[in-house]
Amino acid sequence: MMFPTSASVIIALLMGITGGAFVFYELRRVLSYDPGNETMQAIAKAIQEGSAAFLSREYRVIAIFVVIVATVIATFLHWQTALCFVVGAIASAGAGYLGMYVAVRANVRTAAAAGRNLHEGLRVAFGSGSIMGMAVVSFSLIGMTVLFLVFNGNPNQLIYITGFGFGASSIALFARVGGGIYTKAADVGADLVGKVEQGIPEDDPRNPAVIADNVGDNVGDVAGMGADLFESYSGSIIAAATLGAVLGEKSGAFIGLPFLVAAVGIIASLFGIYMVTGRELPKGVDGSITAKISRFIGQYLIKIDENASLDDLLKVLRRSVWGASAIILVLSLFAILLSGVSFNYWLVILVGLIAGNAIAYVTEYYTSYTEKPTQAIAHATQTGAATTIIQGLAVGMMSTVFPVLIVAAAILLSIWLGHKADGSMAAGLYAVALAGVGMLSTLGVTLATDAYGPVADNAGGIAEMSHLPADVRQRTDALDSLGNTTAATGKGFAIGSAVLTALALLAAYVTAAKIDNMNILGATMLPGILIGAMMPYLFSALTMMAVGKAAHQIVVEVRRQFREIPGLMDGTGQPDYAACVGISTESALREMILPGALAVVVPLVVGHVLGKEALAGMLVGTMSSGFLLAVMMANAGGAWDNAKKWIETGQYGGKGSDSHKAAVVGDTVGDPFKDTSGPSLNILIKLMTIVSLVFASSFGSGWFSF
Amino acid sequence: MMFPTSASVIIALLMGITGGAFVFYELRRVLSYDPGNETMQAIAKAIQEGSAAFLSREYRVIAIFVVIVATVIATFLHWQTALCFVVGAIASAGAGYLGMYVAVRANVRTAAAAGRNLHEGLRVAFGSGSIMGMAVVSFSLIGMTVLFLVFNGNPNQLIYITGFGFGASSIALFARVGGGIYTKAADVGADLVGKVEQGIPEDDPRNPAVIADNVGDNVGDVAGMGADLFESYSGSIIAAATLGAVLGEKSGAFIGLPFLVAAVGIIASLFGIYMVTGRELPKGVDGSITAKISRFIGQYLIKIDENASLDDLLKVLRRSVWGASAIILVLSLFAILLSGVSFNYWLVILVGLIAGNAIAYVTEYYTSYTEKPTQAIAHATQTGAATTIIQGLAVGMMSTVFPVLIVAAAILLSIWLGHKADGSMAAGLYAVALAGVGMLSTLGVTLATDAYGPVADNAGGIAEMSHLPADVRQRTDALDSLGNTTAATGKGFAIGSAVLTALALLAAYVTAAKIDNMNILGATMLPGILIGAMMPYLFSALTMMAVGKAAHQIVVEVRRQFREIPGLMDGTGQPDYAACVGISTESALREMILPGALAVVVPLVVGHVLGKEALAGMLVGTMSSGFLLAVMMANAGGAWDNAKKWIETGQYGGKGSDSHKAAVVGDTVGDPFKDTSGPSLNILIKLMTIVSLVFASSFGSGWFSF
Repeated sequence: MMFPTSASVIIALLMGITGGAFVFYELRRVLSYDPGNETMQAIAKAIQEGSAAFLSREYRVIAIFVVIVATVIATFLHWQTALCFVVGAIASAGAGYLGMYVAVRANVRTAAAAGRNLHEGLRVAFGSGSIMGMAVVSFSLIGMTVLFLVFNGNPNQLIYITGFGFGASSIALFARVGGGIYTKAADVGADLVGKVEQGIPEDDPRNPAVIADNVGDNVGDVAGMGADLFESYSGSIIAAATLGAVLGEKSGAFIGLPFLVAAVGIIASLFGIYMVTGRELPKGVDGSITAKISRFIGQYLIKIDENASLDDLLKVLRRSVWGASAIILVLSLFAILLSGVSFNYWLVILVGLIAGNAIAYVTEYYTSYTEKPTQAIAHATQTGAATTIIQGLAVGMMSTVFPVLIVAAAILLSIWLGHKADGSMAAGLYAVALAGVGMLSTLGVTLATDAYGPVADNAGGIAEMSHLPADVRQRTDALDSLGNTTAATGKGFAIGSAVLTALALLAAYVTAAKIDNMNILGATMLPGILIGAMMPYLFSALTMMAVGKAAHQIVVEVRRQFREIPGLMDGTGQPDYAACVGISTESALREMILPGALAVVVPLVVGHVLGKEALAGMLVGTMSSGFLLAVMMANAGGAWDNAKKWIETGQYGGKGSDSHKAAVVGDTVGDPFKDTSGPSLNILIKLMTIVSLVFASSFGSGWFSF
Repeated sequence: MMFPTSASVIIALLMGITGGAFVFYELRRVLSYDPGNETMQAIAKAIQEGSAAFLSREYRVIAIFVVIVATVIATFLHWQTALCFVVGAIASAGAGYLGMYVAVRANVRTAAAAGRNLHEGLRVAFGSGSIMGMAVVSFSLIGMTVLFLVFNGNPNQLIYITGFGFGASSIALFARVGGGIYTKAADVGADLVGKVEQGIPEDDPRNPAVIADNVGDNVGDVAGMGADLFESYSGSIIAAATLGAVLGEKSGAFIGLPFLVAAVGIIASLFGIYMVTGRELPKGVDGSITAKISRFIGQYLIKIDENASLDDLLKVLRRSVWGASAIILVLSLFAILLSGVSFNYWLVILVGLIAGNAIAYVTEYYTSYTEKPTQAIAHATQTGAATTIIQGLAVGMMSTVFPVLIVAAAILLSIWLGHKADGSMAAGLYAVALAGVGMLSTLGVTLATDAYGPVADNAGGIAEMSHLPADVRQRTDALDSLGNTTAATGKGFAIGSAVLTALALLAAYVTAAKIDNMNILGATMLPGILIGAMMPYLFSALTMMAVGKAAHQIVVEVRRQFREIPGLMDGTGQPDYAACVGISTESALREMILPGALAVVVPLVVGHVLGKEALAGMLVGTMSSGFLLAVMMANAGGAWDNAKKWIETGQYGGKGSDSHKAAVVGDTVGDPFKDTSGPSLNILIKLMTIVSLVFASSFGSGWFSF
């Protein structure tokens, strides 16, 4: 007897609720920490207010967009899809809001906890990250499963639910692009005047843009990254379910499987998180059952030495991710057996997990300053800024080779395994989607390792601004360095999963649009591919220019304050932080509109003018070209950043040398690369595909009949 | 009655011979000019020797490659293809050698002629360019037509002739990559020590790398560019003929048509060249027939005012290209009528011509300092090198939009017109190839406007080094500026034609490999596309790193000479030019091997391991991703260069200001972008495709059976 689909979905819902319960439990735990002294709290309050102000204004803009799109969907498609769209948007926005809400409260608590010891600091910061991570997976899973059950029995059930993915994508777009512009405009603006012109250190409270800079870390790297992966996570499950629905008699099992794998992933992620933040239970009398349990659990907990090196800390996080992966492999084997599908699909999940970790490893290699590529950039600083840039771009380009080979191999193997199991290309494409689900199944914990970074970064800023003892700053710096590395690997993971998700969504689109002739030399296919390949370039150009413009405005404002506010430099005058926060907010919201609109409008135009085949070609073009450009930009940016850090450890003359100046140029170029344009491409790839999928039924053969 | 194919081919051969006769006539004319004083001749001799040394060593390396590949072809395919391969390589190398032979002799004559007036300078420099242009089209056409006639009647005739294109591609690869590395290593190396460290001006004879720099202009921008377009020109004709062969009963006419269009293009190009360099005939007695002819011809000649602005000079060249285009349109109408094919194909030729000129126009807009994009980069120099780089990259990315739309529209229109005319997709793809032939039909004159630039550049260097009067340098500078603009538009033209040619060759490959299932979602197709999209990034990373490495060696050598040669700075010591020439030569030849081998080997590996479908996908991926990256790099490089020139006219503080320093960083980053990596991608795209076409019959379905 086949395991019923709705049983799988209900299991997923229950696990989603479990994850949600953890989110609120962990929220209370993190908030129960000491929020530090009054100075610290005042600074944290400014960051909280700035973040809340940005997010509420951003969400207001998005709300308008959501209403418009929902109306369009309800008018031209179904009200059910529109409903799912709205629910998806709200779920993603809710997860993002919660993640940021706790991040801007955990930062000051991390600084205070770091005053005690390193492990306590990590427990708070990582706890905050895990709230973001678990909120993303739980809210996504609860939303999708509830909608699935609401529309159960309706033949269009899965079509409606694509609306959920579209809603999530829309939030992701604006969160990533708006947040990305905000964070880099504030960062670049603060550095250009503060560090370069006035010669004051980073995070100096006299810098009027310092609060905006700290707000930026949260709105860009927490809310933006969260929304990005919320979209990938939802998209991969939706795509797998949609593709599973056409697989004949076992389709019920195929639809249920991604939900089961996601459910398993929540258990595994919770365990992974617990490994880092858990505490041993109170020990009972020796030999008692309590003591036994305590010892048993305790052996899986990670203890961090006060003098832990960056490598030690990295190992801690890696162990928790790998532990979660191992649990998923074991439990998903049960899921496979329960579903009654071929064992090959278990191998597919394995392929996805390995591919995700392999990309993360390659990213680390290319962006870590202990490795050759980044050191080669540091070496190139000796002959000036120009060679630094050339070498960095070359490293970024070179770093695309392995991620591409890994993803290509994952696609090929998945298709092959699916095809072998069920003898059809459709099964092969389903397997690609399932590999994506597998890759993202550990998201609860991988996103925690990623979203923890900005909290540590903020904690360092707060420690600096409130003049905490040097050893506190040293500990927050250790946590921050770790965050930089996990941020880089997180980006590799985000783009890798975006490609698999987009490919699965594309396959779903081709099915939904009833495209017969997918000939790559078809009349409209090649123009479609070329236009698609161009989109990431256009999108990146717009976002980079937006950062440039917004940073310029910040520079003008900061210069004005230094000029006009008496006593600002000697600390007797009070900078107007809110002005910079306001400028960043305004310009980020203004500049995100055009690229955002393009991502939605262009697929609709191409689909209607050039036809549905051309649109498929365009999606392939955007996917391939965007993948390359995103990896190149993210890794070049990360490598420049760390090349600078490597020089700051005393290489090539250290801080203040000519080499360091050249490295700063590289780092500044890398900022919009790695934190705005590069990651935004993930969303572009997925959003364009899901727009096409949602509107698939409305496209014809276009204006050019052949 | 249908016009026989061989008649078209013979007409093309005759026109090729006419073009060849012009080449030798013009060679005598240019060499008859005054070669200047002894100092000038000594400098010119050093450049001549350096260029000849590089080219002969480069050709020796290539000869080994040619022998190996020819053996492989003869062993695994046919000896006839191997023969064509060798002939193609020799024809391309011959044209490149001749073009460079005259360029390094015309440079000094241009300097001397510029001592008289601007028009004489232009007549010499442009004459040299026109020798390169006409040598390329004539040698290509003679080679292909002779081989066509030799193998006439053989059913594999056209398959053999693809070998000619492969041979041309091989030369192009090494000429572009080797030449590109040479020229930028010498340029960057000379600038970094000379201009930046020692504070001596450009082209200062005390700089030991100055001769290598001037040699580089010739080996990179003359021989490299010539070989690139030789390949496009041959490839587009071969592809059109191959695709025409499968068009049923009228296939004879379809095979002949591209040859006829090429023949017509030679007449038109000769006229265009004549407009710029021609002299009025000696006037006879008024009213006599000689005087009438003289007046008639004279009215089409261009007269250049001594105080001509850059705009005036540009108009001169544009008028000659547009004149040639008009002639082609008229004459190709006859060719269409003669062939008896649909009038639609005349429109296709028109589409190709318009597309080529439109891309050139867009390129000019994005790279000229009289326009906004380049001025925005200049504006960004005010906040330093980092913002200069960010803005430049953004401009480069933005500049891809219109070229992509133009090429996409050209493809779509061509397919549509061909499809309407003959009711098949095959006719549509033939039309794309024909549009490529149309775009390249003016090559004789467009390449002249391009290959003339380095001659003018060299002339300026020689004028500087031999201390000629300021007004001479002023005139050569005017000619050089014009050359910079035509170089940028030439690059746009080269990449646009490369895409059309590659697409046509790809269509020919799909036919030759007998691929039935070109489904874009095929199992191996997507991995193929991703790997293909990655190749341009890998290739660019390698070439940029190669320039960095080679430039570093030059820097070390130049520093050594300044340190060790007594009296070098005050002009009493003699720099060792040959040492720098030797280093550039060595490293260019060494560094071109790996990227070159990759371009040939990767398609063979993918074709055999992943199968012929995956290979088709890979070619599409490389084509689309390479197109974008090439346009981005070429235009960003051009725009940085001109932003610096704009500042040097006195904007933002002019020469020596902080803005200028930031602009120099941009310019230096742009050097390998626009002169090495960017243009090399044209070759990568075409070479990978033609390798696939030549070996098409050897590929199966790969190791992964489905």
